[in-house]
Amino acid sequence: MFSASVLIKVTGQRQLWVKELGIMSTLRRNPVTYGWTIYPDGEFQIPRPACPEEPQISAEECPFCEGKEHTTPPEITAIRRQGSMPNGRGWSVRTIPDINAVLRIEGALKRRGEGIYDLMDGVGAHELIIETPEHHSLFSEYSHQKMHEIVWMYRERMRDLLKDERFRYIQICRNYGLRAGARIPHPHSLAIALPVVPRWVREEIARAAEFWKMKERCLFCDMIALDRKANRVVFENSQFIALAPFASGVPYETWIFPSMHQSQFQDIDDYELDSLAEVLQKTTKALANKLNNPPYNLILHTSPAKMSHQWDSSEKPIAEYYHWHIEIIPRLRELNGFEYGTGLYVNPLLPEAAAAHLREILDKVG
Amino acid sequence: MFSASVLIKVTGQRQLWVKELGIMSTLRRNPVTYGWTIYPDGEFQIPRPACPEEPQISAEECPFCEGKEHTTPPEITAIRRQGSMPNGRGWSVRTIPDINAVLRIEGALKRRGEGIYDLMDGVGAHELIIETPEHHSLFSEYSHQKMHEIVWMYRERMRDLLKDERFRYIQICRNYGLRAGARIPHPHSLAIALPVVPRWVREEIARAAEFWKMKERCLFCDMIALDRKANRVVFENSQFIALAPFASGVPYETWIFPSMHQSQFQDIDDYELDSLAEVLQKTTKALANKLNNPPYNLILHTSPAKMSHQWDSSEKPIAEYYHWHIEIIPRLRELNGFEYGTGLYVNPLLPEAAAAHLREILDKVG
Repeated sequence: MFSASVLIKVTGQRQLWVKELGIMSTLRRNPVTYGWTIYPDGEFQIPRPACPEEPQISAEECPFCEGKEHTTPPEITAIRRQGSMPNGRGWSVRTIPDINAVLRIEGALKRRGEGIYDLMDGVGAHELIIETPEHHSLFSEYSHQKMHEIVWMYRERMRDLLKDERFRYIQICRNYGLRAGARIPHPHSLAIALPVVPRWVREEIARAAEFWKMKERCLFCDMIALDRKANRVVFENSQFIALAPFASGVPYETWIFPSMHQSQFQDIDDYELDSLAEVLQKTTKALANKLNNPPYNLILHTSPAKMSHQWDSSEKPIAEYYHWHIEIIPRLRELNGFEYGTGLYVNPLLPEAAAAHLREILDKVG
Repeated sequence: MFSASVLIKVTGQRQLWVKELGIMSTLRRNPVTYGWTIYPDGEFQIPRPACPEEPQISAEECPFCEGKEHTTPPEITAIRRQGSMPNGRGWSVRTIPDINAVLRIEGALKRRGEGIYDLMDGVGAHELIIETPEHHSLFSEYSHQKMHEIVWMYRERMRDLLKDERFRYIQICRNYGLRAGARIPHPHSLAIALPVVPRWVREEIARAAEFWKMKERCLFCDMIALDRKANRVVFENSQFIALAPFASGVPYETWIFPSMHQSQFQDIDDYELDSLAEVLQKTTKALANKLNNPPYNLILHTSPAKMSHQWDSSEKPIAEYYHWHIEIIPRLRELNGFEYGTGLYVNPLLPEAAAAHLREILDKVG
């Protein structure tokens, strides 16, 4: 796939840059939910409301465009044309530290308590994966080759960050559109290394463990089989399946699974990467066409860094019962107080209908 | 408090109205999170983005203003001037069924399965509490008397709805501002009776039970004591305390607790109602002044309808370890994909600072 490219890795510079930033955030655990909050060090300003009409950063001002490499922190990794130099032109995907990183790579966690409360220092990594030098590209219009490069970079960052023993979870995600939290329009994804396992993933693992204990089967494999029978499939190829989950919280929520059981994203081989790239391309194209280019989030759920038995009530390794997947969540409207405050969603579109709509679009536009 | 008012209760009409609507929604349970989603029956339309500049329903068109009582479903309960007639003028707080109810009062739950998936019919209640006849009133500017009337109505609706054996949880909540999900600007709260216990409350109960098992103390009582010591208190009177929680997920998140242990909101007496009204008035005033009238959600977390032992691992009744409270969540910005997809929040303001800012404001504006 990368016969015309060569991977150049900049080492040693990342730590330096982050040291200069001098930021140290704190993590606090909510004793009622066991969820963590990151408190970045720095000045708080009341955010402006995000409005679709709000002027966005133009290509001229954009620090992520080709030719502006010197305006960003030094790159960590890039897919580059042979002969091109790090932090210069000639790249197609480029990973840099976030200049406003909420976690930093240096230091120890310093776990501590305040009475019943738990806190630790904000050690981790916060990287931006710039997906293309083109300011105006759309994820939903990427070529198969471009999509392959991006998922390849996801795997590369995950494998690299997992080498650090302090990290419990590597979160790959992507925000598209203002309402989904993307304030810079230049196409990019995030790789965030965390010293804790996020709440939703921990919860999924707990449920999957309970299910395994009862049935000795993977919960997600069962879901895939049922969703296939019930016409909730959006698109499927030899290795991956995109489906509208049975109890999806929002219209057109779509999950992408490896069809065969696989617990860790980083185990994906090159052939599977290509297959995943196709499913991602088809799914995001269908969503963009159906919903007129909606804001959305793309979130990778995979096994924690160490295949820990911490949440395992079944005495089985997580690898047997957890099944990695990508969740794509269109952000068509805000959650209201009822949904935000209860975790109970109101979804006006049944997933069977959502899947049918997206299949229709794919029949038309391919 | 209501010496000049008399409570008129319309009976028998609610069921009739809901029958005419002919809506039957379905609840589906996510097997991975055990969270439920309500699928209302009806046509789906892609929602418009909510933008602060969007034109809102004017007082002329508003169905909730005084004189428009005939345009809403018949009222369930109202606080009225003596001699005034139901569904006419002369009310100060008025509860009606939501014309777009996502749950309906009639029928059986019909719990059923589809393979590993669980679903049931959408039986419940979905009521609007119109807080004032005045279209342009602000929650943050209510008089003490008005706030008392509103919390009195919260208790009244909760006590009434709890008589129905099918309901597991009564959710009282309030959305203010477009970004918090309030599409109709006329001041109103919601009372929603659910056949399931919402995910967040279930989770809080599970954690409080674990804590009780270890310590034989209420987790929330411990939190209150620590937050008082650490200067996270926003306002406190004889019965209630408003504080910025230790691990608040968003800037200026504020929780209101009865200072003495109490597990069910509906047990609140008239004297306590008055004390709660004061804390609500002060807190919302401080938030409005500090944040220039921000969008926010107000969510009541209380014990489930039946003090069930379902989640109790400590063989103690929930009453001993669960502590009801109100969460006020300013919605200053959208959750980004990282937060939405992980349940891990990034909050640029420490709660100690948030509490200090709000105390300063209260010192100035009272």
